[in-house]
Amino acid sequence: MRALNYNAAIDRIVQFIREKTSSGVVIGISGGVDSATTAYLAVKALGKDKVLGLIMPYYENQDVEDAKLVAESLGIEYKIINIRSIIDAFRDSLNIDLDKKSLGNVMARTRMIILYAHANSLGRIVLGTSNKSEFLTGYFTKWGDGASDYAPLINLYKTEVWEIAKRIGVPERIVKKKPSAGLWEGQTDEEELGISYKLLDEILWRLVDLKMSKEEIANELGIPVERVEHVEKLVKGSEHKRRLPQGPSFEDLISGP
Amino acid sequence: MRALNYNAAIDRIVQFIREKTSSGVVIGISGGVDSATTAYLAVKALGKDKVLGLIMPYYENQDVEDAKLVAESLGIEYKIINIRSIIDAFRDSLNIDLDKKSLGNVMARTRMIILYAHANSLGRIVLGTSNKSEFLTGYFTKWGDGASDYAPLINLYKTEVWEIAKRIGVPERIVKKKPSAGLWEGQTDEEELGISYKLLDEILWRLVDLKMSKEEIANELGIPVERVEHVEKLVKGSEHKRRLPQGPSFEDLISGP
Repeated sequence: MRALNYNAAIDRIVQFIREKTSSGVVIGISGGVDSATTAYLAVKALGKDKVLGLIMPYYENQDVEDAKLVAESLGIEYKIINIRSIIDAFRDSLNIDLDKKSLGNVMARTRMIILYAHANSLGRIVLGTSNKSEFLTGYFTKWGDGASDYAPLINLYKTEVWEIAKRIGVPERIVKKKPSAGLWEGQTDEEELGISYKLLDEILWRLVDLKMSKEEIANELGIPVERVEHVEKLVKGSEHKRRLPQGPSFEDLISGP
Repeated sequence: MRALNYNAAIDRIVQFIREKTSSGVVIGISGGVDSATTAYLAVKALGKDKVLGLIMPYYENQDVEDAKLVAESLGIEYKIINIRSIIDAFRDSLNIDLDKKSLGNVMARTRMIILYAHANSLGRIVLGTSNKSEFLTGYFTKWGDGASDYAPLINLYKTEVWEIAKRIGVPERIVKKKPSAGLWEGQTDEEELGISYKLLDEILWRLVDLKMSKEEIANELGIPVERVEHVEKLVKGSEHKRRLPQGPSFEDLISGP
């Protein structure tokens, strides 16, 4: 994997957060490593009084305990808001069948709304927790967990987030747990992505950053080219999630002033 | 104002919508001219069976009747979903004070969720209705009405949307009504923006497209330079709404492969 100067990267993120806000941030704490790392970095940057953590479970499971562990280890203010009654209100009003993926999207977008409502009310900004592995593969909900004011980890691969998490003292239980978007019970990222993060990151770095050919990558990593093709498909199929809504251009239909 | 070849622009939008989807679109119909124009263009592009209109009122007022007029004139399928119970569920769960602007944001984002839930369930895409005047001044809710898959009008100024609306047969009542984001009773865009769309568009075109200086613009339009400065402030203050969440870059902290 690419060799990152982790200590300098940590300093840079801390500096970045300080530059973007003086009034404070709101972060959705899921119990996973990305949001924990973001919260730890935000506290380093701004102090614990300027970081509000929102824990927004739909399922009441171990994730809530893990999220509380993060907030309590940091000593930040946090609120637990169960989103079930909001999701039920959506379901009742919509009156259409939602499969588990669509329902997961409704949940992720509902959390975005709650984060912004708090940020608005406190005059703060929303810090997103997306990482580069998710961003490039489209493994996030468009306008949901992908939507925030700033995303400090967006240029770091998942394996790099783990490394940073360890260095800044994120509790071991959080660092070691299986990554899950938590959109339904038992979901794990790696199963849904069809690849381990370790291999995914090795492929993404070569494919996207180094722009190596699929064959070169397969050779270098000693894997079948189909694995690289699988990742390429994820990247291409999610392009629409990495841009704002576009429309046609009319430049050539306008007469000069 | 810049001279646009309207007939060619209409053809281009129709072509654009056809290129982006074969399965159909979902559009939020507000009763205003932007969503009406988008719906009319979508029907021209795809036929009425591939356009679903969602009318999502919070206040039950004339806008709902206007939205129904649009859908019924086109003969498209439409649903009326009152969002009040969802907004109440947010309010009950959040337990914080939301001013009318924050509440308006919750409404706009709730509508986005409902549009995507329908698009997901039908295998369709969400067409946004934002225009260039709104986009450049930030007169939209980030990740709310500003969020869609494609936004056919995003490169057209409001005054140009009005012109297109007239040409494609949008009912006169819709074309002539005072623009309002409908986020609270009695809201009008021009009052909130502090300027008429006619003057706003003249200024935006010169400021953003032609990159003229503030003094030149004031001179050419025969207005005080403060009016131009007001618009410039709207544009600069809303930059964060026109980009995806960003994070720091680490390029210089990575050792070569």
